[in-house]
Amino acid sequence: MDLFYIVDLAGVFVFAISGALAAREKKLDLFGVFIIAFVTGLGGGTLRDVMMGRTPVFWMQAPIYVGMIFGGTFFAIIFRKKMHYLRKSLLLFDTIGIAFFSIIGTEIALSFSYDLHPIIVISIAAMSACFGGVIRDILCNEIPIIFHKEIYATPCVLGSLFYLGLREVNFFDDYISSFVAIAFIIVFRLFAIKRSLELPKIN
Amino acid sequence: MDLFYIVDLAGVFVFAISGALAAREKKLDLFGVFIIAFVTGLGGGTLRDVMMGRTPVFWMQAPIYVGMIFGGTFFAIIFRKKMHYLRKSLLLFDTIGIAFFSIIGTEIALSFSYDLHPIIVISIAAMSACFGGVIRDILCNEIPIIFHKEIYATPCVLGSLFYLGLREVNFFDDYISSFVAIAFIIVFRLFAIKRSLELPKIN
Amino acid sequence: MDLFYIVDLAGVFVFAISGALAAREKKLDLFGVFIIAFVTGLGGGTLRDVMMGRTPVFWMQAPIYVGMIFGGTFFAIIFRKKMHYLRKSLLLFDTIGIAFFSIIGTEIALSFSYDLHPIIVISIAAMSACFGGVIRDILCNEIPIIFHKEIYATPCVLGSLFYLGLREVNFFDDYISSFVAIAFIIVFRLFAIKRSLELPKIN
Repeated sequence: MDLFYIVDLAGVFVFAISGALAAREKKLDLFGVFIIAFVTGLGGGTLRDVMMGRTPVFWMQAPIYVGMIFGGTFFAIIFRKKMHYLRKSLLLFDTIGIAFFSIIGTEIALSFSYDLHPIIVISIAAMSACFGGVIRDILCNEIPIIFHKEIYATPCVLGSLFYLGLREVNFFDDYISSFVAIAFIIVFRLFAIKRSLELPKIN
Repeated sequence: MDLFYIVDLAGVFVFAISGALAAREKKLDLFGVFIIAFVTGLGGGTLRDVMMGRTPVFWMQAPIYVGMIFGGTFFAIIFRKKMHYLRKSLLLFDTIGIAFFSIIGTEIALSFSYDLHPIIVISIAAMSACFGGVIRDILCNEIPIIFHKEIYATPCVLGSLFYLGLREVNFFDDYISSFVAIAFIIVFRLFAIKRSLELPKIN
Repeated sequence: MDLFYIVDLAGVFVFAISGALAAREKKLDLFGVFIIAFVTGLGGGTLRDVMMGRTPVFWMQAPIYVGMIFGGTFFAIIFRKKMHYLRKSLLLFDTIGIAFFSIIGTEIALSFSYDLHPIIVISIAAMSACFGGVIRDILCNEIPIIFHKEIYATPCVLGSLFYLGLREVNFFDDYISSFVAIAFIIVFRLFAIKRSLELPKIN
């Protein structure tokens, strides 16, 4: 799980940057920027933990996560004028982040003491990966972007489903399956960005 | 409790429709429509469970609720052009829904291992019935409609209080009392709609 | 803890007034005014309890808190035309309120069965004191004021840190330390108001 742990932390770092940049556009002050970075990076997992009853929530027991939020926030503030150079890298890291968050969320749901239905497991995975951004947008007084733009949650949902399928057929070792599913999410999302795919609107 | 269970599911279905229609007006995509339907149908009970410590929250242990959300969402999408014919029926079902949600919420609060004060029981009941709509409106970037329009929470609060009173005097069997209270909520709310009653604004 | 308890209740009362006044400006009805008063007064502690797993949340076990919300709401409604005379007193009481909420939040985090890192303890303290106002602003469809105006969270964070430091050096008795930290928060915040200090914006 070592690699998982490192990527998980890196994901929180990148999410914090994305939150801090969104907060900056709203002209928030230092405290506001930090809080938006916090909820973007840790909000999805917090919501998951609260709804599942895994309390105190994960970051309360592992302050390194709050450290990553500090790190991401200050990184974003220091390099704020140069962020457009990093736009592509950030998008890539964000994609890697949601891929890992989805599979970590799936794992957490599977290892829960209650026997959860696959549809619940997938919901929990998608919540872990995507709802930090939802809370960020609500605090910034916007309709959450993932509700009307981009393909964002879809790869998470399908990737989590794919992972459950791989485990079921038991073709690979679970550890390898998780990386296959993560790769699937990353490729799917990058392809969707490349082609500017969007989900159908309901008219 | 069989009838309760069926009406509970039907209530979730109707709430999901109401959420999906609200999401459509905001031009959300398929994922956004589904999530808004989800929080409208299951958000009030989720909030109740989280605050009471009844975790994992109810729908995680009963995936049929998520099935009702899928059902309500697709129903709303398929019949979206014909919804104005259904407006009156939907309003009726929504009213039946909040009436049952209020009394189910009251029951859950009463059967909790802690001995809760009646005012807390009523608060929990109102939260169960009304806060799905509150979360829907927040996600749609609106001030929650029940804070400034219509008589919506009042029948829930009074119905829950009425039910507690009926149980106290022990005149009916509890099961009958619950239906008397449900009827009270339905009649009160329909009367308020008919007469366009509103709560006083604070000027 | 008697004095603590009384000031805690008084803090909730004053927060409820501030919530009710904000709701009035949004032209909410009686129910909306009450709910905004409720989340302003009890939302921070509720969030803290839910994330820590201290459920049912504190006010469910102590209905007097809900009584304070009723009291504060009606006080605000009755004296709404005269509130400008009270503006300064309210600001003072609000400041006393956040100071006590911060230290009470710190105490709760410290006395938790898990051993929490100081940075988590301080986060919990700040959440207890400041997030009622955040939820109030979200429900009123505004970007939370503490994210872009005034020095509000900073005294709470520093006061909680100061209290931890005082306990560490063990110079005073803990009870006295708590009052020193509370005085620190009050003086810091009043000074910040007096000088119209603001946190730096991130441009």
